[in-house]
Amino acid sequence: MSRRRWPYLTGGIPDDLFLRGDAPMTKAEIRCLAISRLRLEPHYRLLDVGAGTGSLAVECALLLSRGEVWAVEKEKAAVELIRKNARLFGADNLKIIHGAAPEALEGLKKADRIFIGGSGGRLPEILAACSRKLVPGGTLVAVCLLLESLASFLKHLPKFSFEDVQILSVNVARGSSLAGQTFLKPLNPVFILSAEKRKEDRR
Amino acid sequence: MSRRRWPYLTGGIPDDLFLRGDAPMTKAEIRCLAISRLRLEPHYRLLDVGAGTGSLAVECALLLSRGEVWAVEKEKAAVELIRKNARLFGADNLKIIHGAAPEALEGLKKADRIFIGGSGGRLPEILAACSRKLVPGGTLVAVCLLLESLASFLKHLPKFSFEDVQILSVNVARGSSLAGQTFLKPLNPVFILSAEKRKEDRR
Amino acid sequence: MSRRRWPYLTGGIPDDLFLRGDAPMTKAEIRCLAISRLRLEPHYRLLDVGAGTGSLAVECALLLSRGEVWAVEKEKAAVELIRKNARLFGADNLKIIHGAAPEALEGLKKADRIFIGGSGGRLPEILAACSRKLVPGGTLVAVCLLLESLASFLKHLPKFSFEDVQILSVNVARGSSLAGQTFLKPLNPVFILSAEKRKEDRR
Amino acid sequence: MSRRRWPYLTGGIPDDLFLRGDAPMTKAEIRCLAISRLRLEPHYRLLDVGAGTGSLAVECALLLSRGEVWAVEKEKAAVELIRKNARLFGADNLKIIHGAAPEALEGLKKADRIFIGGSGGRLPEILAACSRKLVPGGTLVAVCLLLESLASFLKHLPKFSFEDVQILSVNVARGSSLAGQTFLKPLNPVFILSAEKRKEDRR
Repeated sequence: MSRRRWPYLTGGIPDDLFLRGDAPMTKAEIRCLAISRLRLEPHYRLLDVGAGTGSLAVECALLLSRGEVWAVEKEKAAVELIRKNARLFGADNLKIIHGAAPEALEGLKKADRIFIGGSGGRLPEILAACSRKLVPGGTLVAVCLLLESLASFLKHLPKFSFEDVQILSVNVARGSSLAGQTFLKPLNPVFILSAEKRKEDRR
Repeated sequence: MSRRRWPYLTGGIPDDLFLRGDAPMTKAEIRCLAISRLRLEPHYRLLDVGAGTGSLAVECALLLSRGEVWAVEKEKAAVELIRKNARLFGADNLKIIHGAAPEALEGLKKADRIFIGGSGGRLPEILAACSRKLVPGGTLVAVCLLLESLASFLKHLPKFSFEDVQILSVNVARGSSLAGQTFLKPLNPVFILSAEKRKEDRR
Repeated sequence: MSRRRWPYLTGGIPDDLFLRGDAPMTKAEIRCLAISRLRLEPHYRLLDVGAGTGSLAVECALLLSRGEVWAVEKEKAAVELIRKNARLFGADNLKIIHGAAPEALEGLKKADRIFIGGSGGRLPEILAACSRKLVPGGTLVAVCLLLESLASFLKHLPKFSFEDVQILSVNVARGSSLAGQTFLKPLNPVFILSAEKRKEDRR
Repeated sequence: MSRRRWPYLTGGIPDDLFLRGDAPMTKAEIRCLAISRLRLEPHYRLLDVGAGTGSLAVECALLLSRGEVWAVEKEKAAVELIRKNARLFGADNLKIIHGAAPEALEGLKKADRIFIGGSGGRLPEILAACSRKLVPGGTLVAVCLLLESLASFLKHLPKFSFEDVQILSVNVARGSSLAGQTFLKPLNPVFILSAEKRKEDRR
């Protein structure tokens, strides 16, 4: 695997190193905090549900030297983008599934970690499927841009064997130069959620 | 090196896994974003100026499998804490120097990266020393809790051969449970700065 | 009415001018933004549901030169506090009802504005009562500290004839001096909601 | 004075009620918090230095029933905008001076309050002039978008007889609807400063 495009151990790859198109993109700082919550070991399998541009999937694939990432994405244009970004960064352990969750998750093997970047309003079904596809003790991480999505996670996570729900509210702004002076340009505020699948679960 | 206390590739080690004492501590989310800005490669030498509890130094030492971290700290109690935290996490590539910057930096070899956690008001001298101790093209990262410290960095960085100054304003709050409900408990707002030492510099 | 304690036209009365006890208090900056959303005219009747220390009720009473504020509060100690704060600021158009919402709202006349500072988990019933007690076209404003409370408002407001829901996410930090230097001390993040009661409502 | 365009006692007039042109505008929530810091009494004279669209000047003029606002602005287009906004809101106690600070402040009488919306890099001279034009015990309020401007205020305020410097860091986001769902759209982060002119000052 060539690591020339991103030779570093550390994450938070700058946004503009990715091809972006029109797919929504998890910004570098948010990606960095979300991946921190994923707590990856080298051999893990990660499922990325609603992978968008694939920026998070690529970044995780680079970390998982003996593991792999399965990126699920329903939009054809985004699937193309993920493929190109994976090639660009040399992430050959990143597999792409063109399809919508929860159906597209059916045939997959269990994962150690699941990331949800977008849920398209079908969150209860998707959480049910994620719960089935996550190993006991495994971690689910989600980034919510929408308040309704945050509310839906808070409501439904406990129903599907998820516990120890952690929330991070993130308001980050980047310094931006204007005529030699610096103003702060805010990213969209997001909520990063993480939860653990109950260990004693027998479903 | 035993990695039992933190087996993960990903950073943002929870605060309560460290011994803390009274030394100031860079919180997990801030540490995570600051380390992202450090852009580490496995063989790098990192200087941590004002290492406090050593949480950032330990986390970086775990990443630098073929590199090392030199932690400079003037408080004796904090030096003890760093030593204990290094042992606790099995970070045997973390060296500690008991002394105050900039003097304590004098004998050290050049570093690929420098992190400044605290400057005790002597920032110009410390930046001058950091500039001498950083390889051309190397990156300096700092976390500022104090507005005066932010102002001082903005003013002095360009004077000491630092360029491409990047700023991040970080307002993060953690969800905290209260009788089954979640309120947001804010961390202290900080500014994370990064800058590159000019490559063509000949001083 | 003596206005000696707060002679100003402008709001955001400093927290420490109020007697506080153990009741939760809406901080000056949040109060200021919430009152802005209430859009008061001098003759309005305001209902303050869950008035706590009475800081918002007092501040509004001082503005409503020809109107009045009805503060509903279930805790006896808080009722005492509201009474003392009203006297302290000379707010003699502030009436206090010792009781819990929604029952305590029953006998009251319709209001032009309603403020909800806390709902104690009975939000649907309280919103139903607020909807009955608010004039068509009247405005409801709420401050949410709890994410579950925010979710509950978003879910229930449309059911009870409220429309044009506006949300403000507020992360404010106050500068605090430490040895001649300034760090930022964050207030708890809150959400301020406002909504209008449908004009064509005939219930 | 006709108050039909904004009949309310409370501030935070929505941005889109003002004519805006290309002049920078202090957003409603920031204006609301800044005016709170100004602590106005009905008879006060307020100086608005760098008035932009005049939104803050207009809002204060509406409050100052027996006082007046002097808006200083160097851009001709902005002066026109202030004039139109004043007329639109019926603020006939708002006087406009076309000129640049500090020179344009010379002929003016002392003020009870001064607001600085923009300083164009000449902050030390402007603060010196503001100090001369402010009554002892009077309050200066400033909104800083630029970090360099914040640093400059912190450095220079104490030199020109200002004390009790208060800082507010404001990160506010407005809920915005997208296909029936709500995401948070952040305003630019700002710092609101206030300081008092020393009472015993004899210059």
